[in-house]
Amino acid sequence: MAIITLTTDFGEKDYFAGATRGAIYSELSDVNIVDISHAVSPFNIPEAAYIIQNAYHNFPKGTIHIIGIDSELNAENKHIALKLNGHYFVCANNGIMSMICSEIAPEEIVEINIHDKIRSSFTVLDVFVQVACHIARGGTLDVIGKKIAEIKPIKNIKPFVKEDKTQIIGSVIYIDNYGNVVTNIKRNFFESIQKGRAFEITARHYTFKKIYQKYSDIVNFEIPENKRHDEGRRLVVFNSGNFLEIAVYKSNTETVGSASTLLGLGIMDSVSIKFIPNPIKLDDVEYPQNIHKLSDFE
Amino acid sequence: MAIITLTTDFGEKDYFAGATRGAIYSELSDVNIVDISHAVSPFNIPEAAYIIQNAYHNFPKGTIHIIGIDSELNAENKHIALKLNGHYFVCANNGIMSMICSEIAPEEIVEINIHDKIRSSFTVLDVFVQVACHIARGGTLDVIGKKIAEIKPIKNIKPFVKEDKTQIIGSVIYIDNYGNVVTNIKRNFFESIQKGRAFEITARHYTFKKIYQKYSDIVNFEIPENKRHDEGRRLVVFNSGNFLEIAVYKSNTETVGSASTLLGLGIMDSVSIKFIPNPIKLDDVEYPQNIHKLSDFE
Amino acid sequence: MAIITLTTDFGEKDYFAGATRGAIYSELSDVNIVDISHAVSPFNIPEAAYIIQNAYHNFPKGTIHIIGIDSELNAENKHIALKLNGHYFVCANNGIMSMICSEIAPEEIVEINIHDKIRSSFTVLDVFVQVACHIARGGTLDVIGKKIAEIKPIKNIKPFVKEDKTQIIGSVIYIDNYGNVVTNIKRNFFESIQKGRAFEITARHYTFKKIYQKYSDIVNFEIPENKRHDEGRRLVVFNSGNFLEIAVYKSNTETVGSASTLLGLGIMDSVSIKFIPNPIKLDDVEYPQNIHKLSDFE
Repeated sequence: MAIITLTTDFGEKDYFAGATRGAIYSELSDVNIVDISHAVSPFNIPEAAYIIQNAYHNFPKGTIHIIGIDSELNAENKHIALKLNGHYFVCANNGIMSMICSEIAPEEIVEINIHDKIRSSFTVLDVFVQVACHIARGGTLDVIGKKIAEIKPIKNIKPFVKEDKTQIIGSVIYIDNYGNVVTNIKRNFFESIQKGRAFEITARHYTFKKIYQKYSDIVNFEIPENKRHDEGRRLVVFNSGNFLEIAVYKSNTETVGSASTLLGLGIMDSVSIKFIPNPIKLDDVEYPQNIHKLSDFE
Repeated sequence: MAIITLTTDFGEKDYFAGATRGAIYSELSDVNIVDISHAVSPFNIPEAAYIIQNAYHNFPKGTIHIIGIDSELNAENKHIALKLNGHYFVCANNGIMSMICSEIAPEEIVEINIHDKIRSSFTVLDVFVQVACHIARGGTLDVIGKKIAEIKPIKNIKPFVKEDKTQIIGSVIYIDNYGNVVTNIKRNFFESIQKGRAFEITARHYTFKKIYQKYSDIVNFEIPENKRHDEGRRLVVFNSGNFLEIAVYKSNTETVGSASTLLGLGIMDSVSIKFIPNPIKLDDVEYPQNIHKLSDFE
Repeated sequence: MAIITLTTDFGEKDYFAGATRGAIYSELSDVNIVDISHAVSPFNIPEAAYIIQNAYHNFPKGTIHIIGIDSELNAENKHIALKLNGHYFVCANNGIMSMICSEIAPEEIVEINIHDKIRSSFTVLDVFVQVACHIARGGTLDVIGKKIAEIKPIKNIKPFVKEDKTQIIGSVIYIDNYGNVVTNIKRNFFESIQKGRAFEITARHYTFKKIYQKYSDIVNFEIPENKRHDEGRRLVVFNSGNFLEIAVYKSNTETVGSASTLLGLGIMDSVSIKFIPNPIKLDDVEYPQNIHKLSDFE
């Protein structure tokens, strides 16, 4: 059975998401319609790009992803369909796919040109629904559009690196449901610059010298539970999408506070990582016979 | 496979929507349960009426729509099931269907009378679930209720028209996820009064003399993108449900503001449309030979 | 077709819930994934326990319930799977199941021990997804974990009863979408202490002497509709989950107010029920011939 996912800024209340589901079922009786998110902030393309990038690859190959953010057709905002990593995407050519495409090259991109053949009261979505159902029925992309070579990029989405590679300057691209602050610094990228050096991460006037493997690694389980004060402690992790994240342990924006509220960090705020030159390794130094290495005493 | 949709004011957090889905699957193993909205404001019948009216017709004929808003059974709030436009609706007789029924006459209406046969811990919803599943299994309406001729109306939902047809006075019935302000003035109704005349739309102290085809029609694409200031501009469109809507281009209530927040418009606020008498058409006037029509110079 | 439900604190916006759905479809093509709630407050175990307890039993036997709240694996937070009342549950051993288990004994509990066999970018959820899909395919619990005898309890979730049984002291455990205030006092428990006595329920400085059958029982339908003032009146009911609830008729936290906002009641606030000794029944008293019972005059 075909799977069609929906990622939109429609919100949970309006009739838009329900109408879209209905339109799909009117085309295909045998289909799984799966919500990824309808709570993208209105017209927020980077946010949608982050969500779809982290969700899509969990679905089976062949899944068709409709992305309905800022998708009204006009002179500058064309509709595209593309195949990438075995998945299909139908959306506007507004930068939303550039985060995914910067890591994996699309196998095929077309600019949709069947708008004149679609009768609709809800133009934008109906186009995407028609295209998605065409693909679900086994139709090819070249029938519904003309091939194009590349898509529109999002600007400023990548972190900057100092020429001497002593510093990365990233920025906050997403605040999650726990108020955790997600940066645009990915694990692979970080490690390719770090090359084993120590580092200092700075966000506003907070600094961190360690990246934890998981949130509860901050807890010292040898201290009795009633004497611990770990809830509310801040830490840095790579999150499940492999993005560097500033978090607060067991945070809750509404009650105890979160990284976003407690550290005062918002979208587009910058986060810096300074790398500290490796000290001369003592092992590499030849010692006179009567001088011990420090490690001999440890 | 039968499709049952859900439109309620249960919210997304409580167990109510989950319990309802579970109860349906306990009755029918082979069914598509589709959410239209669970975020209707508590007990807000006009809001629910607007949402269901705009969503239902996108689904295939034969779909069964459960509407769970203000549905506790009592002396004045009976349960009904009805067939309209090939769709089935199960809800309380509290006005929720009157917006749809004012445009399309129901084929059949029954007042449900099987409450004594239903064992339940969640009375209201279980009744609707039982009735919906009865219909999904091919059951007829006359088995679960007695025929009635009409349903309870919502008052004041239609716009007023001045007797001389120089003015429509409508009101705001819905604020959508983008903060756009939806009125009760539908395109057909507007055009039937307008008859081609120019007009002036007034909401609070803002006036509009044009209705756009789509949101981005307000943009002048001939101006270079970095010199435009269209985001945040207000405009009037007929929305995808064909309701007259006061919008703000690329609005976001949380950040740049929206029609609702920037213009200070809320539910029940009035919106007026004044029609301007057609000027005498110059073409209809006979000119002496030496007087030119204005259009000759254009 | 197997049914897998999801109850999490992921929220509706982030990619977590979508990714989880995708991961399940990648394992099982033929499955119904049903949301119970993704809006549990972050890390709020009692809230999740309340939601799952009231939702799960509406689903068919054999349903598998994934609960993703505070589920990061660590020295003190193990993963469990259990069978109870014909349903399967996969979650962390953090107290979330203790509300259900205090009423119905589990048939089988295992501590999951297959973490080393799971490749994942989203560890916690992938474990639960793998286990749920294993069960959906007919796998047994002993393959994925080792049997344990009991689960971790939630503290202070039960109401207290005075030794002389003249008073119950409960507390608020949940505020629902209507702002209604749910206590931890269940109908069965209440009735087992009450034994027919009159009572006085006190929450802050409000008292109630009656428990209604349903919300609209507070309305006197003999008064004409336009002369009634029932909206906003406070009352006590047993809700559809059989929990004692302080409600406001047709409440709306955003507009007219709700039990929570109008009475100032929040989570953990206490609610007291005092029982009043039964008066001596006059019928049991022997009267001299010239003294009339009060009832003779009524």
